[in-house]
Amino acid sequence: MGLKLIKNGTIVTASDMYKADILIEGEQVALIGTNLTYDNAEIIDAEGYYVMPGGVDPHTHLEMPFGGTVSKDDFETGTIAAAFGGTTTLIDFCITRKGESLQNPIREWHAKSKDKAVIDYSFHLMIGEINDEVMKELPVILKEEGITSFKVFMAYKDVFQADDGTLFQTLQTAKELGALVMVHAENGDVIDYLVNEALSAGNTAPIYHALTRPPEAEGEATARAAELTGLAGSQLYVVHVSCEESASKIKEAREKGYDVWGETCPQYLVLDQDKLDLPDFEGAKYVWSPPLREKWNQDKLWSALKNGSLQTIGSDQCSFDFDGQKTLGEGDFSKIPNGGPMIEDRFSILFSEGVKKGRISINQFVDMISTRSAKLFGMYPKKGTIAVGSDADIVLFDPVKERTISVDTHHMAVDYSAFEGMQVTGEPVTVLSRGEFVIKDQQFVGTLGAGQYIKRARYGERLVNQADRIALK
Amino acid sequence: MGLKLIKNGTIVTASDMYKADILIEGEQVALIGTNLTYDNAEIIDAEGYYVMPGGVDPHTHLEMPFGGTVSKDDFETGTIAAAFGGTTTLIDFCITRKGESLQNPIREWHAKSKDKAVIDYSFHLMIGEINDEVMKELPVILKEEGITSFKVFMAYKDVFQADDGTLFQTLQTAKELGALVMVHAENGDVIDYLVNEALSAGNTAPIYHALTRPPEAEGEATARAAELTGLAGSQLYVVHVSCEESASKIKEAREKGYDVWGETCPQYLVLDQDKLDLPDFEGAKYVWSPPLREKWNQDKLWSALKNGSLQTIGSDQCSFDFDGQKTLGEGDFSKIPNGGPMIEDRFSILFSEGVKKGRISINQFVDMISTRSAKLFGMYPKKGTIAVGSDADIVLFDPVKERTISVDTHHMAVDYSAFEGMQVTGEPVTVLSRGEFVIKDQQFVGTLGAGQYIKRARYGERLVNQADRIALK
Amino acid sequence: MGLKLIKNGTIVTASDMYKADILIEGEQVALIGTNLTYDNAEIIDAEGYYVMPGGVDPHTHLEMPFGGTVSKDDFETGTIAAAFGGTTTLIDFCITRKGESLQNPIREWHAKSKDKAVIDYSFHLMIGEINDEVMKELPVILKEEGITSFKVFMAYKDVFQADDGTLFQTLQTAKELGALVMVHAENGDVIDYLVNEALSAGNTAPIYHALTRPPEAEGEATARAAELTGLAGSQLYVVHVSCEESASKIKEAREKGYDVWGETCPQYLVLDQDKLDLPDFEGAKYVWSPPLREKWNQDKLWSALKNGSLQTIGSDQCSFDFDGQKTLGEGDFSKIPNGGPMIEDRFSILFSEGVKKGRISINQFVDMISTRSAKLFGMYPKKGTIAVGSDADIVLFDPVKERTISVDTHHMAVDYSAFEGMQVTGEPVTVLSRGEFVIKDQQFVGTLGAGQYIKRARYGERLVNQADRIALK
Amino acid sequence: MGLKLIKNGTIVTASDMYKADILIEGEQVALIGTNLTYDNAEIIDAEGYYVMPGGVDPHTHLEMPFGGTVSKDDFETGTIAAAFGGTTTLIDFCITRKGESLQNPIREWHAKSKDKAVIDYSFHLMIGEINDEVMKELPVILKEEGITSFKVFMAYKDVFQADDGTLFQTLQTAKELGALVMVHAENGDVIDYLVNEALSAGNTAPIYHALTRPPEAEGEATARAAELTGLAGSQLYVVHVSCEESASKIKEAREKGYDVWGETCPQYLVLDQDKLDLPDFEGAKYVWSPPLREKWNQDKLWSALKNGSLQTIGSDQCSFDFDGQKTLGEGDFSKIPNGGPMIEDRFSILFSEGVKKGRISINQFVDMISTRSAKLFGMYPKKGTIAVGSDADIVLFDPVKERTISVDTHHMAVDYSAFEGMQVTGEPVTVLSRGEFVIKDQQFVGTLGAGQYIKRARYGERLVNQADRIALK
Repeated sequence: MGLKLIKNGTIVTASDMYKADILIEGEQVALIGTNLTYDNAEIIDAEGYYVMPGGVDPHTHLEMPFGGTVSKDDFETGTIAAAFGGTTTLIDFCITRKGESLQNPIREWHAKSKDKAVIDYSFHLMIGEINDEVMKELPVILKEEGITSFKVFMAYKDVFQADDGTLFQTLQTAKELGALVMVHAENGDVIDYLVNEALSAGNTAPIYHALTRPPEAEGEATARAAELTGLAGSQLYVVHVSCEESASKIKEAREKGYDVWGETCPQYLVLDQDKLDLPDFEGAKYVWSPPLREKWNQDKLWSALKNGSLQTIGSDQCSFDFDGQKTLGEGDFSKIPNGGPMIEDRFSILFSEGVKKGRISINQFVDMISTRSAKLFGMYPKKGTIAVGSDADIVLFDPVKERTISVDTHHMAVDYSAFEGMQVTGEPVTVLSRGEFVIKDQQFVGTLGAGQYIKRARYGERLVNQADRIALK
Repeated sequence: MGLKLIKNGTIVTASDMYKADILIEGEQVALIGTNLTYDNAEIIDAEGYYVMPGGVDPHTHLEMPFGGTVSKDDFETGTIAAAFGGTTTLIDFCITRKGESLQNPIREWHAKSKDKAVIDYSFHLMIGEINDEVMKELPVILKEEGITSFKVFMAYKDVFQADDGTLFQTLQTAKELGALVMVHAENGDVIDYLVNEALSAGNTAPIYHALTRPPEAEGEATARAAELTGLAGSQLYVVHVSCEESASKIKEAREKGYDVWGETCPQYLVLDQDKLDLPDFEGAKYVWSPPLREKWNQDKLWSALKNGSLQTIGSDQCSFDFDGQKTLGEGDFSKIPNGGPMIEDRFSILFSEGVKKGRISINQFVDMISTRSAKLFGMYPKKGTIAVGSDADIVLFDPVKERTISVDTHHMAVDYSAFEGMQVTGEPVTVLSRGEFVIKDQQFVGTLGAGQYIKRARYGERLVNQADRIALK
Repeated sequence: MGLKLIKNGTIVTASDMYKADILIEGEQVALIGTNLTYDNAEIIDAEGYYVMPGGVDPHTHLEMPFGGTVSKDDFETGTIAAAFGGTTTLIDFCITRKGESLQNPIREWHAKSKDKAVIDYSFHLMIGEINDEVMKELPVILKEEGITSFKVFMAYKDVFQADDGTLFQTLQTAKELGALVMVHAENGDVIDYLVNEALSAGNTAPIYHALTRPPEAEGEATARAAELTGLAGSQLYVVHVSCEESASKIKEAREKGYDVWGETCPQYLVLDQDKLDLPDFEGAKYVWSPPLREKWNQDKLWSALKNGSLQTIGSDQCSFDFDGQKTLGEGDFSKIPNGGPMIEDRFSILFSEGVKKGRISINQFVDMISTRSAKLFGMYPKKGTIAVGSDADIVLFDPVKERTISVDTHHMAVDYSAFEGMQVTGEPVTVLSRGEFVIKDQQFVGTLGAGQYIKRARYGERLVNQADRIALK
Repeated sequence: MGLKLIKNGTIVTASDMYKADILIEGEQVALIGTNLTYDNAEIIDAEGYYVMPGGVDPHTHLEMPFGGTVSKDDFETGTIAAAFGGTTTLIDFCITRKGESLQNPIREWHAKSKDKAVIDYSFHLMIGEINDEVMKELPVILKEEGITSFKVFMAYKDVFQADDGTLFQTLQTAKELGALVMVHAENGDVIDYLVNEALSAGNTAPIYHALTRPPEAEGEATARAAELTGLAGSQLYVVHVSCEESASKIKEAREKGYDVWGETCPQYLVLDQDKLDLPDFEGAKYVWSPPLREKWNQDKLWSALKNGSLQTIGSDQCSFDFDGQKTLGEGDFSKIPNGGPMIEDRFSILFSEGVKKGRISINQFVDMISTRSAKLFGMYPKKGTIAVGSDADIVLFDPVKERTISVDTHHMAVDYSAFEGMQVTGEPVTVLSRGEFVIKDQQFVGTLGAGQYIKRARYGERLVNQADRIALK
């Protein structure tokens, strides 16, 4: 079995920071010590680097059908770009269709990913409706596929949107089965009304995407989902929190003792609504849902991250070319495909804007970018930390390296970068997935299909059981 | 150099939990791995145990003069009891006297501790007044003694109490020097009035200790100290938070971005104000300041711990015999020495009531009982974690062992336990300090005077500098 | 024209309290002065009485179809009972049916009330759906009928419930037309799920009515309605607020500057959820929606009234006999008709529990029971105050008279009282409607059909215009 | 006895607005009616005017010694200017000296006012210390002088400042005696430190007055005073609330059920901190304590007024000439006399910025400017309303008249206006005090010394007793 020895780095986990060497034996971390030497080990010099657990991206949409087109990055380009960005595990959303067996799309997603992924991955399952068939399939899927997180959309009326009854029953079911419910929290009815109103009034430019999805619609839906969760005694994870209206509701829910978690994305931390007003239809590049918000929200999101009322950073990767895809919405903002290229820059943006600027600590950084998602989604301690026995998913991170983000240098398949020209400090240099190099000195050296599908533990199970096994021996 | 090998345990830190073996070489952790074997290492079997960093108790008063008497446990009995309870580092308060050089009491505290302590220790320094002399001494003390935390009392009028001007200037000075200001937050003026009023009315029983120190007086002072900290741009640590009135103020301060931290103590989490009403003057055993509160506050404190608005658990150890010491207050509750025996049961009570009952996670437990205090008070990563290179201050903790707390079995010097008869689950079994056994299979095997005085880093320094060294290479 | 002279009373309005005499000329107040004498005036001695504006009850359901039966009190017994209770104006809900012209039910309601009402009245209009037809009818109805308040149900799934799109469009429409939107704020989807679940589990007793309509479902819906109102820049009135979960949301909305108002009812202030657990199906007498809540909510509601985050007191009168109506739900709590007899005791309960117990001031009492509703619903200053030029709708209220509420003495048509045996202090003695006695020394002396239908001003119109007329002269 | 008849006006009170005529007989309102005619009455045509109760200014400092000088407006110029501004009653602060009988300054204040005041007035009493002598004098003063409000300063260290013990005991005493405690809420210790620090650093310009009295120092002190009030079960009135930090604390206190009230002043609603940075020492004109704040606070104060967490508008009149008085602070901002000319423009500014701009209703205006202060300070219903039997203190207010505020036209004695050039709409035209003209068509026609000293009722007494007399007949 191959041995690798990471020397002289500074190991950083969600709570610790210390200098030590790491011996990798096969796919796992075997030993952590000082001044380690092994005759037959490949030496990786980490002097001057942070040695961090590989990132866990809990929110991607690779090769996803949306609005009559398909997101550009697939499991090949998407996972390669992710690896460049320090991510070694991602969880993609398996989009289901009402009136059809849930197994179909799961099979499709396996087919999309199997021979392409260069890092490990898993799937969340969208729930669009609850009926007898669904209720029969869910326990089977949970057991056989290890899918322990369900996604419910409160927006996208007449497409993905589920009503409150469905959401509530999903929460009840997740509680029984041990799954985590995820919501896209925006009030779809209100947005539908506002979009129609705007279009009727001839307001078709990209900025109206933001103006017809106001923060109140997100805050309201977040509060609603949280309250239903509290009522059901279940658990909730709110994806892509974009604004104070929503973040504050998650804080309140947690203070009431509800088991509610919140994710935000780098785009909401550094970009703002003005981008949608750029001329020449360029605003379309910045069309995410929820939309970018007024700038003052950014401080609130950073504060929520620092104080623990938001816990994770997802990319919400869902990339489209500007030419030919985003431009589908010329003359009608509602036809602009929603989403953007983000999978590659999570580490750099969060480190540069967060840690370097003193907004969060380096330990919080690791927790947000990796550990917490691994724990919440049933993959810890296999993923999410650097510890003896864990998968050797490791990032060598250079905290002083500077870079300018650009479409010219990024590895995603799309024809623009939403962060074009942004200066960042700190960059992944070398990335290992289960002990094998994927990125080495900023070159891709991985293998298509080397990434494995991960069956995940039930919500809370792993930690609880591990403690229980001891406690109840 | 002696080698010790801890086998088969489950290592638990502030963020991780995994099975691995630990090699101790001399005073430090040298290696963490799986299935380690060393010929010449002493084997410590940790099967079935949590292997945790030794506790850091940030708040003790050993052999402290108070109200005409002296707290009973000194650095001998106090540190032995602490070790039995899983604590391997404590920070005692060096009580100064107005109008006198600060160096005098520091010398006294060194004399008290030097040949007695069986675990490592450090000192906080009380600031009762600020004048030119004090301003000259502080930088020297900080540098030479490594004392980087200052304590200000907002209560005990005409004894320890400092006015707002002194508190504010201490905060300003601490900011410049890199120290953490600690406050006893109760409004001494109000309490003084209420005590006199109660005594005038002939209300002399122990319960009046609680009734004359209402939670509003603590909440008010906490808010005041926090606001002054925000104004000064300094840092604050509120000791022994006893109630919602105070905890909520710390939460608000943190949400405003103030650098404010809060400690609570096991007594406030499990005992309530009714205890002070016990007959036969028994209420005197439960006289702490702040006093025990109405029971509903306990849920609020647990919630604050869980959500991160309180961060540490101190013992506020300050023990007095019932006979001869507590009884000084018969006929006048204001003469009952304030404080109780607590140093020994931090781990058991916090684990049993917190982790076992699902109120906090096992990682949060480690953070509160050890890691966070080590970080805040400039001792991390030497103290506060189990990591390669850190001091081998290690606790083998049996999470299923049951015990009844009692004066008959405790190791503190006093004639009663405030938790007499309480059933707890989970107990330290073996404790090492810098690689040496202090407690082995629940027997004391340590050495008087083996504990070392710790010079501490400036507030925030260690972590920042370590990152900076890399970042600025 | 007839003259009446009210002598020696203490006039109480929403801000004043003073001794003076009142001359009524025909239907209006003509003169207020001291020691008035008029030869040809009928003297009404008010010595020892408060002389208050007649009550305005903004929330009644007389002769209303519900669940296969019809509420027992009609415009005859209902308005007589109202008058006994000090109320001289009420606004009933005109219940519409989806897919049908709104004019039909309005005609029905006129037919029900015309020859029966003994006091003045008006109608709110339920909006169940918005379509082109509705959009065409609304401006006409507003203008011709003077109906300037629309009611939307967020509960009663598949019966009255409207979705968020309808609510939002109603808010937008109301803003344009100058109407006030009223909501029944409970999450109908969640309740529907919980009711089915309870019935499936064989939980059929009345208490399950409360348990399947938890306060969270009300708080959530209230927050949602308020947020949609803020978004629309419209105005909202939340009916029958029963609990802290809901009241706190209204407070937050108002602090954000939203134009949101809240009504509570006497039943929520003095009765609690335990009533639904009474044996022999007696709990059915206490089935309101929202349900009675845990007792601690009462303090919160009183505080909200005192501090102004709730503003009005409605009766939500909707009475059913116990025998034959409430008993429809034996074996299935969901079949118990919702509502109770309340129209008669608003004054006595609010005065006795509110003013006498020091929870609200006497001026706040008048505002809540009369003035505020008159202003909000476009009837002030014709209704809602004692001022020169206003309708002589006047109550002589004896603040010390004691009474025991009982079915034996009440004037509603139903066979039980929900407040049976309750002791109250303070009672209307004599009541005038537009200058004519309806109740004289606690005897009914009114005339069926004497009550007039009131066309109401647009929301905010009256006050604004009156000021504007002066301002723009 | 003289009769006056106010015809055709629109009467506005704290809750009502209606057209009616008012007959004044001697000093009181005798009759309110429509189309009144009296042969021998002097007719006052109020067509197009609001007819409002005369203003009650709860906060003035006339001829007050401060910082080695004396405020310029005395009871002659001050009350004349007040009358021009619609105020018919003011309460001035009687400033006491530690170590001296409280009777001395009261005698001085009577001497200052007796032959000068043109409108009615009363005194608040400053409490600087509590000792046996003070405790003996207070009940006597309360009874004989009718002084039922005590002022405590938490700022002005070594001058007026009282410690928390004194404040708490004052609250206790006020509770027993039936008085209302008023506080100047700023943390004097902190300010003292910051002022010294600024001066040491050579920062002597007026802007440092604001920078050394930060809003946190006001918020903190407000919270402290409120908490002590809650503890004492007493009552508190916070004067001159200048910022959100303080206003939010009053709101919280009221929500906890504390009997706490808040006053703000026009200067805080329309001026901001930038004024202190004007060149040529002009900033000194805007030196108030608390200082003017950042502009965003103004919205928060308006919101607090609208939602009822602030209740009254005081002027804090304390005027100094720029030349010779304000200039005392050239080269040392701490020597600038604190305060400004404000007594004359309360009505115009509050109406113009509040009512005209839709921030508060016209009824709220009357409550804030008159009624509430009359009620809180024991003068209602003699003062504070237009009702039969009340003093005929009446303002004819032209709601459309426009004016530019200027030193050239104001009636205060000082050489500048802090609102120079400000456009306002709405102005008092005619003002009556106890039935006599003081201002007639904007000309002063009053008499020096015609104003009477008012002995005030105990806190809460008047209203409670009036109700009780009836209730307990």
